[in-house]
Amino acid sequence: MSTTDVPYGIGGDWNPNDCNIHLTTVGSMLHLNTAGMDAAEFRKRGKEMVDYIADYMETIEQRPVYPDVQPGYLRSLIPEEAPVEPEKYEEIVKDIERVIMPGITHWHSPYFFAYFPTGNSFPAILADMLCGAIGCVGFSWVASPACTELETIMLDWLGKMINLPEDFLAGTSGHGGGVIQGTASEATLMSLLAARSKVVKLIQADNPDCVESEILSKLVAYSSEQAHSSVERAGLIGGVRMKKVPTDEKFSVRGEALKMMVEEDKRAGLIPFYFCATLGTTPSCAFDNIIELGPICNAEKMWMHIDAAYAGSAFICPEYRPLLNGVEFADSFNFNPHKWLLVNFDCSVMWVKQRADLIGAFKMDPLYLKHDHQESVLSPTPQHPDPQHWQIPLGRRFRSLKLWFVFRLYGLNGLQDHIRKQVALAKEFEKLVRDDQRFEICAEVILGLVCFRMKGSNKLNEMLLKRVNGARKIHMVPCQLSDKFVLRFAVCARTTDSHHVHEAWGHIVNVASELLQELSH
Amino acid sequence: MSTTDVPYGIGGDWNPNDCNIHLTTVGSMLHLNTAGMDAAEFRKRGKEMVDYIADYMETIEQRPVYPDVQPGYLRSLIPEEAPVEPEKYEEIVKDIERVIMPGITHWHSPYFFAYFPTGNSFPAILADMLCGAIGCVGFSWVASPACTELETIMLDWLGKMINLPEDFLAGTSGHGGGVIQGTASEATLMSLLAARSKVVKLIQADNPDCVESEILSKLVAYSSEQAHSSVERAGLIGGVRMKKVPTDEKFSVRGEALKMMVEEDKRAGLIPFYFCATLGTTPSCAFDNIIELGPICNAEKMWMHIDAAYAGSAFICPEYRPLLNGVEFADSFNFNPHKWLLVNFDCSVMWVKQRADLIGAFKMDPLYLKHDHQESVLSPTPQHPDPQHWQIPLGRRFRSLKLWFVFRLYGLNGLQDHIRKQVALAKEFEKLVRDDQRFEICAEVILGLVCFRMKGSNKLNEMLLKRVNGARKIHMVPCQLSDKFVLRFAVCARTTDSHHVHEAWGHIVNVASELLQELSH
Repeated sequence: MSTTDVPYGIGGDWNPNDCNIHLTTVGSMLHLNTAGMDAAEFRKRGKEMVDYIADYMETIEQRPVYPDVQPGYLRSLIPEEAPVEPEKYEEIVKDIERVIMPGITHWHSPYFFAYFPTGNSFPAILADMLCGAIGCVGFSWVASPACTELETIMLDWLGKMINLPEDFLAGTSGHGGGVIQGTASEATLMSLLAARSKVVKLIQADNPDCVESEILSKLVAYSSEQAHSSVERAGLIGGVRMKKVPTDEKFSVRGEALKMMVEEDKRAGLIPFYFCATLGTTPSCAFDNIIELGPICNAEKMWMHIDAAYAGSAFICPEYRPLLNGVEFADSFNFNPHKWLLVNFDCSVMWVKQRADLIGAFKMDPLYLKHDHQESVLSPTPQHPDPQHWQIPLGRRFRSLKLWFVFRLYGLNGLQDHIRKQVALAKEFEKLVRDDQRFEICAEVILGLVCFRMKGSNKLNEMLLKRVNGARKIHMVPCQLSDKFVLRFAVCARTTDSHHVHEAWGHIVNVASELLQELSH
Repeated sequence: MSTTDVPYGIGGDWNPNDCNIHLTTVGSMLHLNTAGMDAAEFRKRGKEMVDYIADYMETIEQRPVYPDVQPGYLRSLIPEEAPVEPEKYEEIVKDIERVIMPGITHWHSPYFFAYFPTGNSFPAILADMLCGAIGCVGFSWVASPACTELETIMLDWLGKMINLPEDFLAGTSGHGGGVIQGTASEATLMSLLAARSKVVKLIQADNPDCVESEILSKLVAYSSEQAHSSVERAGLIGGVRMKKVPTDEKFSVRGEALKMMVEEDKRAGLIPFYFCATLGTTPSCAFDNIIELGPICNAEKMWMHIDAAYAGSAFICPEYRPLLNGVEFADSFNFNPHKWLLVNFDCSVMWVKQRADLIGAFKMDPLYLKHDHQESVLSPTPQHPDPQHWQIPLGRRFRSLKLWFVFRLYGLNGLQDHIRKQVALAKEFEKLVRDDQRFEICAEVILGLVCFRMKGSNKLNEMLLKRVNGARKIHMVPCQLSDKFVLRFAVCARTTDSHHVHEAWGHIVNVASELLQELSH
């Protein structure tokens, strides 16, 4: 049967297979309709799209990595209103190159060295296609059992890959477990809200007269001064104070620094309840010292959340796993396979030791979402709590398919190779920088990020970056470290190779030489 | 060049195209690696997946709509750990039918009548494929200008399609505008947080000594007692009181009911600041009377947010647009094209009259996210504020491609036909129910949802639903209306047709007859 709109209310002898033009009766109106796309055309167009994607990936480095458009460029290229009648698919195909591609920053170009990587691989794209076709909304177990169950199991797989303590795994009898969030921002927010809810209940249990707003007004959360802006935002959203803990010379929060702040705040009558540690900060990929910080949080009954958005993927390599030591003290842990584990955005994984803490904070069960298996799935075993209680949104896509496809088609070895290759490329770039006396390295290179600058003023480095990016051959973003304007070189694309790194450095050096020459006149 | 992992640090005369087995040097270790998937294999596998998707859609009605599995079914079907070495793609293909499909609730089966529809169409799947390939993370304009700009323009297109007041559109000089959120839950939360931030600032402007926690403790938000659970949750997250306004006999909140509560709360020293109106409630698709409610909110300086998650798509039809009258009083408005407008999940659209309210609540600008065009894009014109400030997550996919493909390939007419067809099918089902004296209709059928029950006890209706669903021919979920257990029949799948509705009714009637016969013995 055709899958375009088919008529209804038409005599029984009419067969939708007999014609391509569908008659649709709407009230008294009768009009021709060839809208949408049927399965036969999808087979054709889908295969063309597969080739387009493969072509795009194979030739991506021929495109300027950064687009040459000004804000507002797109509006003049397309109509001001949606079409009334359906357009031909060919028109859309033309517009992909005419309208969209000129405005794309190509995150998967091997010349893209900005921000942090965002994952992309053919297995993940295939999994997402399947996810789109199944198109289930997995807010509860019954809404699609496979969606909930595969997610729980994939999070166990991944937890084992990074040797996460048993407490965080769901298994068949654990109290912990993992869930896929959209982004690290959501994971941080969820952990903060769970911690907030837990501390309020705890205080009210001892002091039944204590009103929530009074407690909230005394709560203090902490994070590194180097933490991502989303951590501060979580505090704003949760309506609690968020204090920034100063870092040491390696941009790392140490135990003593947190301890001093906590003690001072307690003396002032405040209630420390939450610390967000960062493993792999956004500016410089620094690591908070969770081995020192964890015991302090535990002793103070503060929730410790670990945000390892970028760095977390590296923990699948035994040689980088020590960076996660101390996770045993944490209540929740999060990283983004959609950053560095070849999984397409969005897929941020979060584990908690006590899933009841997360679920308890927001559980609501209107009748239209109740189901027969609810009691059993919320009991400790089997382990399939309805995901709706673990996150901000109610609905969710079948994102664990991406993890399943990528884990199986790469294998642990293949994924380790990917991480190791990118770290090695960063080290290679670091060496190039160190070999040039005009430049300096600004932070220890631990994983795939190199923070560097020209020796000299911030102004000079700002000019350098502006010119480097302006040429559109490579793309980088800056950061600020101890008042210095610093350039960040992050190895991002799956296909970035040694020669791309050398070309990038050659380009930077050329621009720098030009700049120095001009300034010397 | 091959897109699987390619070697680095190997002499320049090596050409990755010459061999299929890639040698990867990692430290001193050398091992064979055929992990992942290269572009050539993706061309093959991608096309197979396109056919699988088309086959799945064409034969979906032959599958039982609801799976026959018990919680925990999946764990025994797959290994306990991820593979160390890559597996063959063929193994995954086999597992789709062996592991995944037995646990799928088929939301796109024409026999699926549960919850509300979730959108799915071939054009949207194609757009999502492209989105996956581009794989940009559009948190700011520079991160991919096309991603930010197309979204703004698609929201203008869609705003015009539903005849939204000019105030809500971005255009080239407006103060309003639209953004794609993941879900209606996030849109509600964002509106509540923006309203919270606005009222706190307003009060503090007049009373500089007033501390935030004291203000928060006095704030009151309101929503219908019929509102979705996510509205109550937004209150919990935002740390503010959320009161439920009683509804009239049509399950609609009326002006008088809100006014009474607001006045009482003001007398008690509280500060009413937010009302979330629902157009098309989840239990019965009831409509709050926003023409009465809007002026009250405006007079009281309360933020009015409208959640039309399901019903919103219908407003593209002029005959249903009157249901949105009163939107001119609102501060923000949201609906889910991923429900009823043939766009795959997730795609929830939200408009605000003053985007400064939303952006102002959470704007943060660390250096690594700053860019040259920031000043211009945050100015009133051109209209491309960085989307990161409009939402909870920082990162975001290129979701507007789905809207663009669907709008163009269906055209407004095609989309209107889809809505009208589904409403007509609901009316057809309503007539079948009304014609059977043993049944009753429980709420006015306005769009694609029919609430009905057998005349008799709740117990009887619970048994009926359990048996109907147990047979796995059709799938429905219940709701509660005025203490009555009610069955919800929602026309969901794009391919649901008159004969499916008749078959569903035939099935329900058979089960009901059996049940009555058994009970009469």
